[in-house]
Amino acid sequence: MLATVLHGPRDVRYEQVDEPSIILPTDAIIKLSATCVCGSDLWPYRGLQPMDGPLHMGHEYCGVVAEVGREVKTVKPGQFVVGSFCLSDNTCPHCQYGFQSSCVQREFMSGAQAPYARVPLADGTLVPTAAVPSEDLIPSLLAASDVLGTGWYAADAARVKPGSTAVVVGDGAVGLMGVLSAKQMGAERIIAMSRHSRRQALALEYGATDIVSARGEEGVAQIKALTHGIGADSVLECVGTQESMKQAIQCTRPGGVVGYVGVPHGVELSGQSLFFSQIGMLGGPAPVRRFLPHLMELVLNRSINPGKVFDLQIPLADVADGYRAMDERRAIKTLLRV
Amino acid sequence: MLATVLHGPRDVRYEQVDEPSIILPTDAIIKLSATCVCGSDLWPYRGLQPMDGPLHMGHEYCGVVAEVGREVKTVKPGQFVVGSFCLSDNTCPHCQYGFQSSCVQREFMSGAQAPYARVPLADGTLVPTAAVPSEDLIPSLLAASDVLGTGWYAADAARVKPGSTAVVVGDGAVGLMGVLSAKQMGAERIIAMSRHSRRQALALEYGATDIVSARGEEGVAQIKALTHGIGADSVLECVGTQESMKQAIQCTRPGGVVGYVGVPHGVELSGQSLFFSQIGMLGGPAPVRRFLPHLMELVLNRSINPGKVFDLQIPLADVADGYRAMDERRAIKTLLRV
Repeated sequence: MLATVLHGPRDVRYEQVDEPSIILPTDAIIKLSATCVCGSDLWPYRGLQPMDGPLHMGHEYCGVVAEVGREVKTVKPGQFVVGSFCLSDNTCPHCQYGFQSSCVQREFMSGAQAPYARVPLADGTLVPTAAVPSEDLIPSLLAASDVLGTGWYAADAARVKPGSTAVVVGDGAVGLMGVLSAKQMGAERIIAMSRHSRRQALALEYGATDIVSARGEEGVAQIKALTHGIGADSVLECVGTQESMKQAIQCTRPGGVVGYVGVPHGVELSGQSLFFSQIGMLGGPAPVRRFLPHLMELVLNRSINPGKVFDLQIPLADVADGYRAMDERRAIKTLLRV
Repeated sequence: MLATVLHGPRDVRYEQVDEPSIILPTDAIIKLSATCVCGSDLWPYRGLQPMDGPLHMGHEYCGVVAEVGREVKTVKPGQFVVGSFCLSDNTCPHCQYGFQSSCVQREFMSGAQAPYARVPLADGTLVPTAAVPSEDLIPSLLAASDVLGTGWYAADAARVKPGSTAVVVGDGAVGLMGVLSAKQMGAERIIAMSRHSRRQALALEYGATDIVSARGEEGVAQIKALTHGIGADSVLECVGTQESMKQAIQCTRPGGVVGYVGVPHGVELSGQSLFFSQIGMLGGPAPVRRFLPHLMELVLNRSINPGKVFDLQIPLADVADGYRAMDERRAIKTLLRV
């Protein structure tokens, strides 16, 4: 089959690869209904992450089960499923605590920017729907696999509560999903930091009450002004740079929490400065599996429309264009039609 | 009067200073019932913290109110009071959220290793008792001012809950108070990391269920072995060095929390490593004022005996000996009789 392989910085190819097959009895093979490009795919695409060799790209997925290994019990061929980008057994102690992204058997999904993909640990990773959903819900169900689940985790980790004030640092797809999530969790005030008009508009649509376009010290000063000098209860850090993390920390009130989901690249934190800012922090790869049943239900009953974050939808064969559009910030997020 | 002044590394003197007086209408002057030496006093004593000039030492205190400024409403001369080492107005938004140690008017107490001390922001800082307590309770009430309140905050920040597993890194007085606090909060398993037999004994008396004397990688391995490979729900970091913080982080399970109260000295944290360890963190100077009424009640009804942590009690005039004994780890904590 043809699938997506990254050979080096900005060298993404749609090329012949082996079809996936059951390797372990706990595997499933799915036929993808749609897949997409993740903001985190841009790190290796931009040469900002070391590569040992060609990478089979794609970790966000939903589709129909084609085949299962002999030990798979909870899904069967023909069922529509969504899975987390973090593969987990969903039975180990960390999974039981709701941190499936730290599962003792954790693997990261790969090779999903393709017509077919192998999903290891199928029982612990995949969540089936009662029926194959209608076509227009596919983008939103796909979003649940990572980008929505990650934005949701940022809000959960930052302990967004009814009536609270949340700041979202980062106007990428995850940040926008963070806005949606904070709204669902009842935040009264949601301040999105964005300097990009189309993203600002989507943030407002998803529930942002204020937009701050300034960054750095001026951005922090504006957040402080909007919060009566106090700072926010919850800050969702959805970028992963030193500057964005610093901004997130400085926007948080003492006793507030930064939920950070942008994979930190070159971020160093001073223990003493964290100590005296007296803020809580929780981050990491999102335990999407914990949230997946709830998020799928919200999509299926049309309470939320996370799929709107895909502002570019192209055929899988044009995947290289999809990377380029996101790299150049022409697209928020690219959906690939299979 | 004679009081304690640090002139430079290991040069602590009991010498003539001005008697404190009301400077602001919100001040109180208290006659100390007892005072003590804090582990954090050892940082400047050891020359590990820059000094601009001579320091009037002492920030842990309890005693009888001698005089109040004209705006002080909640305490009056003759009342016995305990106050936090962090001075706060107890009315600003941060105080209302329970983070009085980040009060917009925050100051740190000083000059309490003396017969009399000035307490700014008296209304927001001091908690009076109904009657002057019996002499034998003075050490425990004094402990509430900082060392107990700080150990309690470590456990609170680390979210110790009934049935949970807590690890305490550091066997200084704060660590021992962390053990006591975790026990009060219902932790089922409390693992104290200590290699000092007298401190181990006190930890066990305060509720530790296990002692781990190894440090570094071997210490972490033993904690993992004691927790079925999972790590602890809550870890109380009560030291403040790079090594102790690393150990605390590595002992925590994903989704668990490190409550850190040792003032970090030279601690640098990698954002990416924190991200993938997926642990929560909350630290800072303890908002003792939040806990003070509850802690004083526990002492007054003799539910707890934190005063046992003072294993050296000497006259204030011998304060230099008290510093030396703690510096050389001959004493856990020195109480100074006034």
